Amino acid sequence: MEIPAYVAVDWGTSSFRLWLVGSRGGILAERRSNEGMTTASQLGFERVLQSHLDAVEAPATLPVIICGMAGARQGWVEAGYVDTPTSLGTVLAGAASVPGQARDVRILPGIAQRNPDRPDVMRGEETQLLGALGATSSGEQIVCMPGTHCKWVRVLDGVVTGFSTFMTGELFDVITKHTILSHAVAGAADAAPDEAAFAAAVTAAFERPALATNLLFTARAGQLLLGSGAATAQARISGTLIGLEIAGALSTAGKDASITLIASGRLLALYETAFRHLSLSFNAIDADAVVRRGLSAAAQAIWPDEESKSA
Amino acid sequence: MEIPAYVAVDWGTSSFRLWLVGSRGGILAERRSNEGMTTASQLGFERVLQSHLDAVEAPATLPVIICGMAGARQGWVEAGYVDTPTSLGTVLAGAASVPGQARDVRILPGIAQRNPDRPDVMRGEETQLLGALGATSSGEQIVCMPGTHCKWVRVLDGVVTGFSTFMTGELFDVITKHTILSHAVAGAADAAPDEAAFAAAVTAAFERPALATNLLFTARAGQLLLGSGAATAQARISGTLIGLEIAGALSTAGKDASITLIASGRLLALYETAFRHLSLSFNAIDADAVVRRGLSAAAQAIWPDEESKSA
Repeated sequence: MEIPAYVAVDWGTSSFRLWLVGSRGGILAERRSNEGMTTASQLGFERVLQSHLDAVEAPATLPVIICGMAGARQGWVEAGYVDTPTSLGTVLAGAASVPGQARDVRILPGIAQRNPDRPDVMRGEETQLLGALGATSSGEQIVCMPGTHCKWVRVLDGVVTGFSTFMTGELFDVITKHTILSHAVAGAADAAPDEAAFAAAVTAAFERPALATNLLFTARAGQLLLGSGAATAQARISGTLIGLEIAGALSTAGKDASITLIASGRLLALYETAFRHLSLSFNAIDADAVVRRGLSAAAQAIWPDEESKSA
Repeated sequence: MEIPAYVAVDWGTSSFRLWLVGSRGGILAERRSNEGMTTASQLGFERVLQSHLDAVEAPATLPVIICGMAGARQGWVEAGYVDTPTSLGTVLAGAASVPGQARDVRILPGIAQRNPDRPDVMRGEETQLLGALGATSSGEQIVCMPGTHCKWVRVLDGVVTGFSTFMTGELFDVITKHTILSHAVAGAADAAPDEAAFAAAVTAAFERPALATNLLFTARAGQLLLGSGAATAQARISGTLIGLEIAGALSTAGKDASITLIASGRLLALYETAFRHLSLSFNAIDADAVVRRGLSAAAQAIWPDEESKSA
């Protein structure tokens, strides 16, 4: 029987995920909750973690590796940032120890781009990168990680040379909830997605990104004048924001770059559709697996004894 | 003494303004309230209008000319749209009569652009155009009307050939209230505006509009990494959205177009600053006066007898 080797935790702003990993790399137990940074900062990070460790009956000295917002200034223990350009291996070496714990608990740092014109930060995505590419990749990768704050990262021979955050997911959320377009999308959840409208909006925003906030308004004007429905409005908004993002990301990376897309579920489908309509070449990696793989790579680098157990 | 000739009303989504205009064009009385379409649709349009007519002691047969959202489908009486291309004189001829009134009450129509790729609507701004340019202007005008939904209109020899709505004002509002950037701008109202950051953001978004939603995020990353303040964050957000809008508007109009800016107060100052930093030529017209002037032009066209009184 496989014995527990370490615990891996992906601790985001609004979600908590924990895996009990065995000495041969198997997943012995898993926990998911909504006790992300926001909730945990009120309940206490230590208490939240311990409750889940108890639930999976983790041995008292089993080490824990954590990535994500638990390492933010408003998190549990600030894990700081490693500055670009940086190898993903350097990120592993920068893990912060949580003091006063009976067991060895470490939080991985984020990555910062201290460019006065284009300052940027990531926290959690560096672990996804590690899981997707490994610590020592070669060649050039353009990695797209969709979400609330989408990250586009350029990795050259295992070194993160630069990255850009696009607020696509959060803007879609507030535009469809809090602007006049909220009326235009009312009922869209009950209708079949309008893929043709989505593709047309992606192309329009990609080709003429400067018109983005005008193209958004056509979701309303199209209903008033052309009688288009809620699903069409939602597709126009989503497509406009994603087309704008891709235009921006490729304005630095170039249209010939091969894209590694790390996503799952609905976001995976949307970005795959967008890339295909823009004739961009890409390969997709499921996002659910890469965080765990990145945390495992970190655990094996930090506690090589555990790695030898699994050899 | 000047006798009352007609009543002019600018009835927007959230505001109501009324002027009692005299036979020689003088303003004999004025009313302002927040009984816009949203409130008036609950209280009753007729009742709201009558209360203000009573307050200014308008004679019982005095005609009333109205522009704005009172003519929307959700308004008092639908005044429809005149389609582009249209002369501003045609807009005047399309005024809808409100039935069942003791006096002559008319609501001006909006303008619609029934282009399947770029459908667009305006309601109220056509009256501002009329006030700014008159019914029979000559040559080409590119008119910029900032606000919640900014309108850019091309007028050629008095004919509205096309226009574009940009959601700049509403996006600024929801981004600073409902996204992660709300933390970045907290306290900005108490600080001096950061004009340098505003100008830099306008230029950055104008030159690289595809990066707009990335440039927005720098308002947060700049605080985390560079220690910049709330006023700087607010200026970055505002400048990015305005720079993006101007890039989009001029992608159709061309950078050499001379712009007529219709604005007042804070918006006037922001757009003047933006245009100057982008070396765009423009002339500014105060927005407060043009609606009234447009309504007066409409009243004189619809009720020429009243005009003759004022001759």
